[in-house]
Amino acid sequence: MRILLANPNTTAAVTDTIAAAARAVAAPGTEIVPATARFGARVIGTRTEMAIAEHAALDLLAREAPGCDAVIIGASVDSALRAAREMLAVPVLALTEAALHAACLTGARFGAVTLSRRAGYTLRELIDGYGFAARCGGIAVVEATPLDLLGAPDRVGEQIAAAAARLVERDMVDSIALIGAVMAGMPARVQPHLPVPVVEGVRTAVLLAESLVRLGLPKPTQGSFAALPARELSGVDPALAARFAAA
Amino acid sequence: MRILLANPNTTAAVTDTIAAAARAVAAPGTEIVPATARFGARVIGTRTEMAIAEHAALDLLAREAPGCDAVIIGASVDSALRAAREMLAVPVLALTEAALHAACLTGARFGAVTLSRRAGYTLRELIDGYGFAARCGGIAVVEATPLDLLGAPDRVGEQIAAAAARLVERDMVDSIALIGAVMAGMPARVQPHLPVPVVEGVRTAVLLAESLVRLGLPKPTQGSFAALPARELSGVDPALAARFAAA
Amino acid sequence: MRILLANPNTTAAVTDTIAAAARAVAAPGTEIVPATARFGARVIGTRTEMAIAEHAALDLLAREAPGCDAVIIGASVDSALRAAREMLAVPVLALTEAALHAACLTGARFGAVTLSRRAGYTLRELIDGYGFAARCGGIAVVEATPLDLLGAPDRVGEQIAAAAARLVERDMVDSIALIGAVMAGMPARVQPHLPVPVVEGVRTAVLLAESLVRLGLPKPTQGSFAALPARELSGVDPALAARFAAA
Amino acid sequence: MRILLANPNTTAAVTDTIAAAARAVAAPGTEIVPATARFGARVIGTRTEMAIAEHAALDLLAREAPGCDAVIIGASVDSALRAAREMLAVPVLALTEAALHAACLTGARFGAVTLSRRAGYTLRELIDGYGFAARCGGIAVVEATPLDLLGAPDRVGEQIAAAAARLVERDMVDSIALIGAVMAGMPARVQPHLPVPVVEGVRTAVLLAESLVRLGLPKPTQGSFAALPARELSGVDPALAARFAAA
Amino acid sequence: MRILLANPNTTAAVTDTIAAAARAVAAPGTEIVPATARFGARVIGTRTEMAIAEHAALDLLAREAPGCDAVIIGASVDSALRAAREMLAVPVLALTEAALHAACLTGARFGAVTLSRRAGYTLRELIDGYGFAARCGGIAVVEATPLDLLGAPDRVGEQIAAAAARLVERDMVDSIALIGAVMAGMPARVQPHLPVPVVEGVRTAVLLAESLVRLGLPKPTQGSFAALPARELSGVDPALAARFAAA
Amino acid sequence: MRILLANPNTTAAVTDTIAAAARAVAAPGTEIVPATARFGARVIGTRTEMAIAEHAALDLLAREAPGCDAVIIGASVDSALRAAREMLAVPVLALTEAALHAACLTGARFGAVTLSRRAGYTLRELIDGYGFAARCGGIAVVEATPLDLLGAPDRVGEQIAAAAARLVERDMVDSIALIGAVMAGMPARVQPHLPVPVVEGVRTAVLLAESLVRLGLPKPTQGSFAALPARELSGVDPALAARFAAA
Repeated sequence: MRILLANPNTTAAVTDTIAAAARAVAAPGTEIVPATARFGARVIGTRTEMAIAEHAALDLLAREAPGCDAVIIGASVDSALRAAREMLAVPVLALTEAALHAACLTGARFGAVTLSRRAGYTLRELIDGYGFAARCGGIAVVEATPLDLLGAPDRVGEQIAAAAARLVERDMVDSIALIGAVMAGMPARVQPHLPVPVVEGVRTAVLLAESLVRLGLPKPTQGSFAALPARELSGVDPALAARFAAA
Repeated sequence: MRILLANPNTTAAVTDTIAAAARAVAAPGTEIVPATARFGARVIGTRTEMAIAEHAALDLLAREAPGCDAVIIGASVDSALRAAREMLAVPVLALTEAALHAACLTGARFGAVTLSRRAGYTLRELIDGYGFAARCGGIAVVEATPLDLLGAPDRVGEQIAAAAARLVERDMVDSIALIGAVMAGMPARVQPHLPVPVVEGVRTAVLLAESLVRLGLPKPTQGSFAALPARELSGVDPALAARFAAA
Repeated sequence: MRILLANPNTTAAVTDTIAAAARAVAAPGTEIVPATARFGARVIGTRTEMAIAEHAALDLLAREAPGCDAVIIGASVDSALRAAREMLAVPVLALTEAALHAACLTGARFGAVTLSRRAGYTLRELIDGYGFAARCGGIAVVEATPLDLLGAPDRVGEQIAAAAARLVERDMVDSIALIGAVMAGMPARVQPHLPVPVVEGVRTAVLLAESLVRLGLPKPTQGSFAALPARELSGVDPALAARFAAA
Repeated sequence: MRILLANPNTTAAVTDTIAAAARAVAAPGTEIVPATARFGARVIGTRTEMAIAEHAALDLLAREAPGCDAVIIGASVDSALRAAREMLAVPVLALTEAALHAACLTGARFGAVTLSRRAGYTLRELIDGYGFAARCGGIAVVEATPLDLLGAPDRVGEQIAAAAARLVERDMVDSIALIGAVMAGMPARVQPHLPVPVVEGVRTAVLLAESLVRLGLPKPTQGSFAALPARELSGVDPALAARFAAA
Repeated sequence: MRILLANPNTTAAVTDTIAAAARAVAAPGTEIVPATARFGARVIGTRTEMAIAEHAALDLLAREAPGCDAVIIGASVDSALRAAREMLAVPVLALTEAALHAACLTGARFGAVTLSRRAGYTLRELIDGYGFAARCGGIAVVEATPLDLLGAPDRVGEQIAAAAARLVERDMVDSIALIGAVMAGMPARVQPHLPVPVVEGVRTAVLLAESLVRLGLPKPTQGSFAALPARELSGVDPALAARFAAA
Repeated sequence: MRILLANPNTTAAVTDTIAAAARAVAAPGTEIVPATARFGARVIGTRTEMAIAEHAALDLLAREAPGCDAVIIGASVDSALRAAREMLAVPVLALTEAALHAACLTGARFGAVTLSRRAGYTLRELIDGYGFAARCGGIAVVEATPLDLLGAPDRVGEQIAAAAARLVERDMVDSIALIGAVMAGMPARVQPHLPVPVVEGVRTAVLLAESLVRLGLPKPTQGSFAALPARELSGVDPALAARFAAA
């Protein structure tokens, strides 16, 4: 099984990090195929970068998804997730959605921890949009950037553990979801210090992708994920435009 | 990996049916360990039987879960699911919860189809209780019993397909969740006639159980699934009472 | 009028306590018939004990309800409430549901106070399940067990009053619901120290039970509380099994 | 015990009707004290009349409530209910709120039936405002006026029974709340034709009023129902203005 | 264009204040026509005064609205807003509703600041009733009366700015709505000290009123704002009663 | 005042249509500046095109917004609305959001009518995302494309009027929002046949844009619309990349 791990950020180092985490959990026969966005933000952190990444993610998937059995969108904002489910015939997962599903399967109410205040605003919208608001006991923001975390994982890890502990204590959550691609290595670091299960998106997305491939569901022909109709798009990569020709 | 497939109904024939479906999707190294409730309803169909099955499920798990790496509660009412997550240290899945997660991963909005009107009332409460109401586009009830389905799968399958098609057409859902242990074999039958993915609980529960085992999360020591404290219970099976002694 | 006060815990001392509170508010012609569960938890405090109590409550009702005009389930987790409404032809009330109704009738938004953190998790689920979330301004947990309260009512009462006062001040609630069978005597103790009405479940359940008996509503023949169909159950008390034979 | 039954409509014949229904269910020692609004609508049926009735209800209560142990606002739009709870020191009930509580105590989901389309719009807002939306399975409007009902109870009763039966069958509700002061006599008429319990507001309001009086709760000194502060109002009845002087 | 600015309070000084604010933002051709309630509260601050103001507002509109192209109800409790939309054929706006719309157009989530705790209780109900709960990140109450504000705008302004800053910092809101007629001059005072847009109701209501007049929408003949039917009301001002004669 | 009317579709003919509608309602001093996307879909109709349009809209705004006092995003999917509010310092409006605000200001509950089933799926998500679900009484889909409407406005107009009438009659809505850029001319056509107000997005967006400009709110420095930080983006138009340099 080949799983495309598509990073809608343009920073290859992040792609490498999440690919390593993905490989660590993947089943023996699963190949992780990393890919990095060709344009847009180094590390998506604003609404404007998120909007550009919607296009960048699809541009990347149109080029790299052929030949893969499943796709994971490797950023915490789940760029273009539902569009990708429409555009492609294979299962598509994304980091935050996957982490939230795992958090719900291991806790009656979960808490979410993310990096940087700006991400906190849109994380709430993402949780609401997935319909998980009733299961979310709280969102905590650690004031550090993804680069801070990569540079000083010990120090930022302590902040994350402290924020998670507060969610457990004060907001009475049963599980913790760490939100962000760079969180891939963090559960191993903070779990020993926390009294509830800690999940993150890369590993859970790989497991869910493998699961959905094994379910073998067909491409819908109706509903909002039905295959694309024939259309003419202009000014986009030919691979992306070709997706509309095939209908 | 050993997965206990615990049927909180007392009908061994249903246990056999779901065990076969579970084995069909399980990974090579996964052993499915079937078990059937020692008391209660033949086929849970009323609120009263549901309440008794809460106890019957735990009675069964206390006796049979030791030595297993994960547990699946094999009835559509997800008997004692959260209690089992508290009582046991291994991952616990259940059919309807699993099916709804799969339906959300394959559709922006899902429709649910269940057998018998009486099950429809409580299915809605189950969906609300899991916080999936915002993702549920509709519930359809097929007026047939589980035994009807086992006896005349062709005819009942047609009714199910028709009900699902109406959910797709009128309520604009993107995926269909079939609810009920006896639905295990139904997707293969109805999927060819439906334009959106069809999922059910047995297969998805097996895949999710395998996934959670591979995640290797610790038993919580806080939160509502924290290990049981020491207590003295009376009048219950010694294996169940012993769960409270171990704290 | 005879009202069965069925305690799904196995501790007869708690039954006595709530029976005394019930008698104190009952109308002249009302007889309170106390009964204690035959198996299960001494004091229900975990999800596992809650699940067992679902069965224990019905076991008790099937044996003791005949001859009674109404039933009150005397535990804060409202064990098997909806199942009992299905199984029996007489009105069935429960402590937390009753307290919440009273709190809504005396406040635009209520606050709920319960004992022990573990109860706080499931109380929220109970409130959500009844659809009262929009009316609930906050839940406060007092870190004391029911036995602590019975042993040191003054000290625990002070904690309860303090928690309630914070709900009034910070969360701007208009009324307070005390949750828990052992809270039966607590309003008299804390009300003088609190600026809003304080209600608990035993007294309100008696009043609501008397009210529903006087309304004289028929047993439904449709809906999710319709009389039980004929079924064969195994391994349960004959009185409980007989409930399914009568259909 | 004296219960003021305050009709915010100006039609004394409606007051007589509901007073008779109230007396039929009141406890032996309970005296029903009927009163009719001094100004406003004959039968409140529009938003404009509802707004005027907010004042008319308080005008009536300020004059007639002294000496009473509880108050019932006798119109389906529950005119000034929360204001009355603030203004008075005794329990205040209202017809629709009471009916909805009874419907929730007898059904997991209720259906509501009201007269005239115009009332349907605001009934939905009332149900939402009380936080009962999650328990409401449907609202049905019978196209008849209150006067039609009083003039031809048989014919309108048949329409009501038919609408209620549809709610049971199609929307799967467990109980029916009849909304409207003139519905007081309707349950006796339609209950024999319906498979689920049918409740209305007058009787349930009397029972709840008696219950709350027996609970003996104090007047709040904080919260949104705290006693009125001293204020000077102009152009209103002296009895109403005097309510603000007493603070 | 003539816009009636109808103050349902009886204090003409407040009318003058909001009329000045309204004129400051009105388009060149717009005439602001101020009017003050003939009876009721000086400054509405309790539920009881709110109920009376429902009538007072309509009494005022029935007399003063003829000849105007739009109406603004000039109090924070939006007295009789929906009734006025039914009663009149011209657009009707109100302060809090207008402020909330503006807050939503300038922020993903807004915070609301109001004066006096008592107003906080009903503000939440107003926000819920408009369906804006999901957009509201928090409500802050400044413990000062409207008269305090008029008497010491500097000091109260500082309290308001501090409360708003906490909403931005702790509750992560994107915009601030100041609630209350006397807030009309406050944005100019606090905006320089706050990092997000600050809106209030008078100015936004004027702009929305002008916008709706320019849209030129017809009076509905169906729905809950359809023109009043013919009715006979008693004991109300002839101008108000005449509204029902015209149907 | 200059208002940029930015069409994220690539079809200039649609830009011309909505520009004409915008000019028809704009105030005398308002200049409408039309602009058309440089890449992407001719007429956005799928999730994939929506995702690409997020980028296309920002690309267009970064180039064309300088010198304008406000911006309107001229497509029914409100492409990149919140990102644009972050990226720009002037007010940003969008068609569907504007139409929904107008529908709420003219109806207690609104119905929405859109073209083509595929748009119906995402319209519901848009309404939910704005928090307007509680105000939405129903969504109706007319099975016609935007091009069908432009080619046969009479015939499609009849379908739209019929769908709207059903929403008024069956779902009891008070106002109708027509969703879609090509709906700009439709209210004039269908309003005469409908009993409730009909609004669409182009005109209301112009009016709201003018209103917000007149309010003169500052660019936030905190919250999720705070000005962009300094970042380096690659592979995007220099004008868009420059937006991040200016911080």
